[in-house]
Amino acid sequence: MNTYIIGNRKNNKKIIDLGDDIKIGSKEFSIISGPCAVESEEQIELAAYTLSNMGVKILRGGAFKPRTSPYTFQGLGLEGLKLLKKAGKRHNMKIVSEIMDPRDIDCSYDYVDIFQIGSRNMQNYALLKEVGKFDKPVLLKRGMASTIEEWLKAAEYIASEGNDNIILCERGIRTFEKYTRNTLDLIAVPILKELTKLPIIVDPSHGTGRKELIRHATRAAVAIGADGVMIEVHPNPCEALSDGDQSLNFEEIKSVLSDIRAIKDCINSFNSY
Amino acid sequence: MNTYIIGNRKNNKKIIDLGDDIKIGSKEFSIISGPCAVESEEQIELAAYTLSNMGVKILRGGAFKPRTSPYTFQGLGLEGLKLLKKAGKRHNMKIVSEIMDPRDIDCSYDYVDIFQIGSRNMQNYALLKEVGKFDKPVLLKRGMASTIEEWLKAAEYIASEGNDNIILCERGIRTFEKYTRNTLDLIAVPILKELTKLPIIVDPSHGTGRKELIRHATRAAVAIGADGVMIEVHPNPCEALSDGDQSLNFEEIKSVLSDIRAIKDCINSFNSY
Amino acid sequence: MNTYIIGNRKNNKKIIDLGDDIKIGSKEFSIISGPCAVESEEQIELAAYTLSNMGVKILRGGAFKPRTSPYTFQGLGLEGLKLLKKAGKRHNMKIVSEIMDPRDIDCSYDYVDIFQIGSRNMQNYALLKEVGKFDKPVLLKRGMASTIEEWLKAAEYIASEGNDNIILCERGIRTFEKYTRNTLDLIAVPILKELTKLPIIVDPSHGTGRKELIRHATRAAVAIGADGVMIEVHPNPCEALSDGDQSLNFEEIKSVLSDIRAIKDCINSFNSY
Amino acid sequence: MNTYIIGNRKNNKKIIDLGDDIKIGSKEFSIISGPCAVESEEQIELAAYTLSNMGVKILRGGAFKPRTSPYTFQGLGLEGLKLLKKAGKRHNMKIVSEIMDPRDIDCSYDYVDIFQIGSRNMQNYALLKEVGKFDKPVLLKRGMASTIEEWLKAAEYIASEGNDNIILCERGIRTFEKYTRNTLDLIAVPILKELTKLPIIVDPSHGTGRKELIRHATRAAVAIGADGVMIEVHPNPCEALSDGDQSLNFEEIKSVLSDIRAIKDCINSFNSY
Repeated sequence: MNTYIIGNRKNNKKIIDLGDDIKIGSKEFSIISGPCAVESEEQIELAAYTLSNMGVKILRGGAFKPRTSPYTFQGLGLEGLKLLKKAGKRHNMKIVSEIMDPRDIDCSYDYVDIFQIGSRNMQNYALLKEVGKFDKPVLLKRGMASTIEEWLKAAEYIASEGNDNIILCERGIRTFEKYTRNTLDLIAVPILKELTKLPIIVDPSHGTGRKELIRHATRAAVAIGADGVMIEVHPNPCEALSDGDQSLNFEEIKSVLSDIRAIKDCINSFNSY
Repeated sequence: MNTYIIGNRKNNKKIIDLGDDIKIGSKEFSIISGPCAVESEEQIELAAYTLSNMGVKILRGGAFKPRTSPYTFQGLGLEGLKLLKKAGKRHNMKIVSEIMDPRDIDCSYDYVDIFQIGSRNMQNYALLKEVGKFDKPVLLKRGMASTIEEWLKAAEYIASEGNDNIILCERGIRTFEKYTRNTLDLIAVPILKELTKLPIIVDPSHGTGRKELIRHATRAAVAIGADGVMIEVHPNPCEALSDGDQSLNFEEIKSVLSDIRAIKDCINSFNSY
Repeated sequence: MNTYIIGNRKNNKKIIDLGDDIKIGSKEFSIISGPCAVESEEQIELAAYTLSNMGVKILRGGAFKPRTSPYTFQGLGLEGLKLLKKAGKRHNMKIVSEIMDPRDIDCSYDYVDIFQIGSRNMQNYALLKEVGKFDKPVLLKRGMASTIEEWLKAAEYIASEGNDNIILCERGIRTFEKYTRNTLDLIAVPILKELTKLPIIVDPSHGTGRKELIRHATRAAVAIGADGVMIEVHPNPCEALSDGDQSLNFEEIKSVLSDIRAIKDCINSFNSY
Repeated sequence: MNTYIIGNRKNNKKIIDLGDDIKIGSKEFSIISGPCAVESEEQIELAAYTLSNMGVKILRGGAFKPRTSPYTFQGLGLEGLKLLKKAGKRHNMKIVSEIMDPRDIDCSYDYVDIFQIGSRNMQNYALLKEVGKFDKPVLLKRGMASTIEEWLKAAEYIASEGNDNIILCERGIRTFEKYTRNTLDLIAVPILKELTKLPIIVDPSHGTGRKELIRHATRAAVAIGADGVMIEVHPNPCEALSDGDQSLNFEEIKSVLSDIRAIKDCINSFNSY
């Protein structure tokens, strides 16, 4: 498959070390959570405060938002990243946020612990190569209709520039089914574990597009062996500027986190995994 | 959605009672297992003996086989059903087998406890109406590229003739991904639980088409709330006349059954399901 | 591909001779037209009268209707076939109508010149084998999400029983695009001409699901080398009991027929086709 | 649909004027042709010489190549653009070439008459916005699995920055069918003509991925009303560094151009288009 770097299993799994004993791809199941978009200092501070109290160590929030229409909310940009970093620092959380333009990497560098590359940019090779030149971990989402092979080769683009600190994120693929926003391809998780050394997480928020399904999708993600999940949370989903339909409130995420722990304990008890 | 009968949740979930205290849709997780096709008396007897010893109570086996090419093994027909019934009787197992022709229902009636309707026939309305006139449970597989709405309306065709003893079976949908035979749409399980009173099971064998993925898909199916699974097993998968690539051997199914119990116990411990 | 009979190109293209000098797969472009469903004697008589006056020689009309929901109009059944035959006889038109149940073939035999097998039944092997035992031409529609290989093997099922008088009909495949009912796969036409001796026609009505697109799809179908088209027409589309959105009125079909002639003449002038 | 600029039909169709009386979206059918990638001065000069002698006025050639794997030929970069421009100048041809990085637009500006944005970058909003700030026409390919709505909104991103000189290019969508590289969605052409003022061309080379199908796809594209086609040609397809399977040789393109003229004349004779 020509994925020499990320496909290399000789040294076993790749563990992404974010510092402060926060690792993705290790025995611990990783939780990334936060709002779809950073909307205000109050919103992101409240999210960070609440989530960190629940044990979440990685905060997500969109500053540069890739929206289908040019006329919808495009995010707060660099200002949003600064708010994210501030909230993260106060609550000892690491920050993951999407960048869309190779020219934004430099100025974003100090505010982000993991660069996210979104579905629309999975084959934006200029962007992939650019993040490959930095030393910061990259979270690479699967393209909306990308095959597993294309996805891995996109990861190899990053690695071929020198940076193999890559986390793969399954977020649903496009099918004919209209009930859900996407079809979450959970079986991609064990397949990827065979084909690459990289950790793989699941995004049940985009993968389903419906908040009532997130709990179920998350349980399945843990059971099928994912290394983590990324879940959208908003203090008040009804008022979210984007993706409110798929955002959990604080009470809901708390309950999901409890499920995760129970299933993860169960999975860990299996010998032959 | 015009699914008045199967959509009616007033009386809660439908439980399919097969007798001898074997129920699908109850608290107990249902396991259906057996070979893709009945090949010989020895093969099906060995499968029934071994599986029943592991606690499996429902035996599957194809007698009328829907094959893509007319020149591949088409199954043993009625003779196959008789062998199935004989093995099932000896080991106290219920029998599920696919029928493809409305004219075969009458003669199959005495040998089968659940009529299976396969993916290719999900919208074969002549067949749906015919099984709707009988009093025997029907296992309705999802069509290869059917929406959830079409699937439920197909079930309603059966119910509208008088028989609402229907089990839905998710078996993967067709997408652009080439690594797996189909893309298992696990999120269909919680969706269907909202939309219908019928039990829903998952077929990880057809849903993935690769035996090494079945264990993982099964774990996720239990975690996401399925009422059961149907898994292909063959005494010697390498020599199977059909679907050898996706058949487990006895040792493998034993291990999968152990996983199922552990995750099911874990799920049962959740309050809010 | 194991399509020994229909794939055999030794004797060149198969021409389906319907008698009265009406042939499908010959140099002449075939037009099949009529209402989605036979609704009344007046309706089908008016359609036959008008269409035959425009030069259309093959009349379509559904008597056994495969509807997604059991609670929508299911067709007039055998009575519909009799009305079709009566209208066809009066206006010297051949009749094509869908059968869905192997038990209906015998009783339909006298009223139909071409048995149609619909998309939902493309892999209904009991039905395919049954029509394969008769001497009447079969129009086999492509399944909603069938590959070309599966479609050809379905045709081979018919041929393997002795009847290779088969017409293939491309009617659109299922994709993620929501604007049209299906995505018409026109490139299947030249592919099939390489892989099989059978004639291939296009159904722009189901292939698009929108009447304003039918004219354009038909032009392309002629240009790409199809042997014919099947187009739904209704005396009053707004009052059609089924598929009104994709039915042309008489004025519209007349204009489409004129386009067909012009493009067909153009195509015929090419040497190297 | 929120496509205020490109959806505005008040002033009728948008005509892209490239100078020297070369216009896209006018009555004349536009032909864009050339190799997948610029490989050498000799190759592009021979292509330009031969194609211009056949009447082709717009030369394509990839300099920055988006390849699935980082280890395959990535194009000659800026050097390739200079070779393209040189060949174009000598033979009075306009140049279209893909850019992938917003930072490359400035340096490419003098060598390119139309900026192409490829399928992988259809929702690369940083790139869309950047080309929107220039005054040069943009050829926007449809994403591999993009809906028509998403495609139009991507075009609106460009237009919203001030540049509505946009040409849409249908190049096939991703489906389950494995015989062709993509499924060419020809019906998108008349749909887009309803929804936007922009010209729409078809790429039968990527749309099919098989050279033997290009002739047929092109005929259909003309018949269905496209404003032009973009076809890959190579002096020696067997030795092409990329996409050799879908490249025509000079003799083949000559024959295709002859077909185009014949069908276009035929279409022009229709009154009611």
